[in-house]
Amino acid sequence: MKEFIRVALDAMGGDYAPAAPVEGAVRAVKEFSDVKVILVGKEDVIKNELKKYTYPNDRIEIKNATEVIVTGEPPVRSIQEKKDSSLVVALKAVKAKEADALVTSGNTGSVLVGGQTIVRREKGVERSPIATAIPTEKGVALLVDAGANVDARPDHLVQFAIMGQAYAEKVLNIDKPKVGLLNIGAEEEKGNALTKEVYGLLSSRSDINFIGNVEGNEVSKGKADVIVADGFAGNLVLKMYEGVSSTLMKTVKEVFMTNAGTKIGALLIKKALKEKLKTFDVDQYGGAPLLGLTSLVVKSHGNSKAAAFKTAIGQCVSFIKADLNAIIKERLNDIG
Amino acid sequence: MKEFIRVALDAMGGDYAPAAPVEGAVRAVKEFSDVKVILVGKEDVIKNELKKYTYPNDRIEIKNATEVIVTGEPPVRSIQEKKDSSLVVALKAVKAKEADALVTSGNTGSVLVGGQTIVRREKGVERSPIATAIPTEKGVALLVDAGANVDARPDHLVQFAIMGQAYAEKVLNIDKPKVGLLNIGAEEEKGNALTKEVYGLLSSRSDINFIGNVEGNEVSKGKADVIVADGFAGNLVLKMYEGVSSTLMKTVKEVFMTNAGTKIGALLIKKALKEKLKTFDVDQYGGAPLLGLTSLVVKSHGNSKAAAFKTAIGQCVSFIKADLNAIIKERLNDIG
Repeated sequence: MKEFIRVALDAMGGDYAPAAPVEGAVRAVKEFSDVKVILVGKEDVIKNELKKYTYPNDRIEIKNATEVIVTGEPPVRSIQEKKDSSLVVALKAVKAKEADALVTSGNTGSVLVGGQTIVRREKGVERSPIATAIPTEKGVALLVDAGANVDARPDHLVQFAIMGQAYAEKVLNIDKPKVGLLNIGAEEEKGNALTKEVYGLLSSRSDINFIGNVEGNEVSKGKADVIVADGFAGNLVLKMYEGVSSTLMKTVKEVFMTNAGTKIGALLIKKALKEKLKTFDVDQYGGAPLLGLTSLVVKSHGNSKAAAFKTAIGQCVSFIKADLNAIIKERLNDIG
Repeated sequence: MKEFIRVALDAMGGDYAPAAPVEGAVRAVKEFSDVKVILVGKEDVIKNELKKYTYPNDRIEIKNATEVIVTGEPPVRSIQEKKDSSLVVALKAVKAKEADALVTSGNTGSVLVGGQTIVRREKGVERSPIATAIPTEKGVALLVDAGANVDARPDHLVQFAIMGQAYAEKVLNIDKPKVGLLNIGAEEEKGNALTKEVYGLLSSRSDINFIGNVEGNEVSKGKADVIVADGFAGNLVLKMYEGVSSTLMKTVKEVFMTNAGTKIGALLIKKALKEKLKTFDVDQYGGAPLLGLTSLVVKSHGNSKAAAFKTAIGQCVSFIKADLNAIIKERLNDIG
């Protein structure tokens, strides 16, 4: 390991760029003494932002990149054509081992394409899934794959299980994480052609702590710590979570506004509700890593603020200190 | 059409059988003057229940069936072996045209298998989907297929769209129902192999009011009135809805109990909350029909009470009065 862990941070990605990533970088170098942050993006813009803060100057660098990939750009084209974008320059820095990891709040599609084509998969990894933390009644569960690979094959899902289990154990610090298969129905014979085959494969591996199927209604209950899915099913589940939560919270707020009585009631409840909902804030677990690449790439929420960027940088530290890529490599090569 | 619409009702199925279905039958014949209900199940038990009520005696019949299929029985075996179960006897009555439709709260798996193997599909229907109403911010959406057919082919999903659109229009009384495809991503080229092909097929049909993809986070917003899906994806979405709602409502209740202040707040809000949540009660739309069978089979929730059975019987009346099976047949044969 190097003296410092060097994290490249896309200073131009996300809804609050460049202010939020730059502030996140400053907070990270103050909190983590072994981190150097390389802010990638328009040099003058970043310099201007950095002026607002005092921080250990030798631990924040700037890497100039003149272009920016914006929301909604076609992923493949954005990566191919915007060669001097903050995202592409940052990915190349990681590939060239100038940085140990990358955190970006950019366009998910572009991050997925760039991760696969520039940073590339570790040898032996068939597909690189995106692993997203989702809130549960018991804390958090890691959904792998949350949308990077549709039409995945059974052996891909077995790799997702191995990588997800390693990540949950070493980075999320979950003791003996329980691995479940996203499916319809509880029994082994339930599901579609893909999940039926995956069930058999996962059951047969002694190195996977497989607890069986997880149905849609069991996801938020916290039945499993790692939920293995094809990217299509995983993305549906992730987005359903967002949609139903938003609809219900909207409904509760409407109830609060019904009449004078409910408005007073709302005032009495507001603080406790806000506190409680914080436990559902998955930003505390960092961003979503693309697992199985030669170096770590973390995709943060588009709406990440400074605190979320700082947490994501901390997540890179844990990942690298645990040498997770070496563990994944070893476990994938293991016959199980 | 016959003088009366004859609905067979499984008197032994569901959590509150036989009391709830029997009371539902009584309420139905009182409310709908053109309905006859055939209660299927143990004759002595049903007779005993019926004694509690006064009702037009000539419009409730009993059809004896000595066995009962219970929760968790293997679907195929339950249908093959329990030939004198209330469900099998009721399905056969429908097949033999002794009844025009069937309402049952029994075991979903057994109802699906029994519907396909005893009542059978209408000629030209490739797969019979189960169509489940789910609550949205704008009212209700019909999810087709909610779990009957996994590994469905593209042309199956086109049929689901046609049948779902007809049902939404004629039974749910939605004017020009918008048909969406459950998918990940908004654009045409997004999704897996199945949805990409289905997108093209749905777009090319002038008789389908296709509005494009519906992502997981758009389901509860009410973007589409009919959501077309493979049974695997549809079931995940349905169960995620249940699970996330339950987790969030549990959380809100915990917030209410935080301290003396929140407890008072809860008292002030309770009534309005209960009222509001009623709008999310999909039982008001009846049970979930299996579409495309030779006669209508409606699966009611396992926890249906008398009111839900009555509504489901009313749903059969609308279905039959609209002659929905004839409409479906005609539209399926249409080249689009």
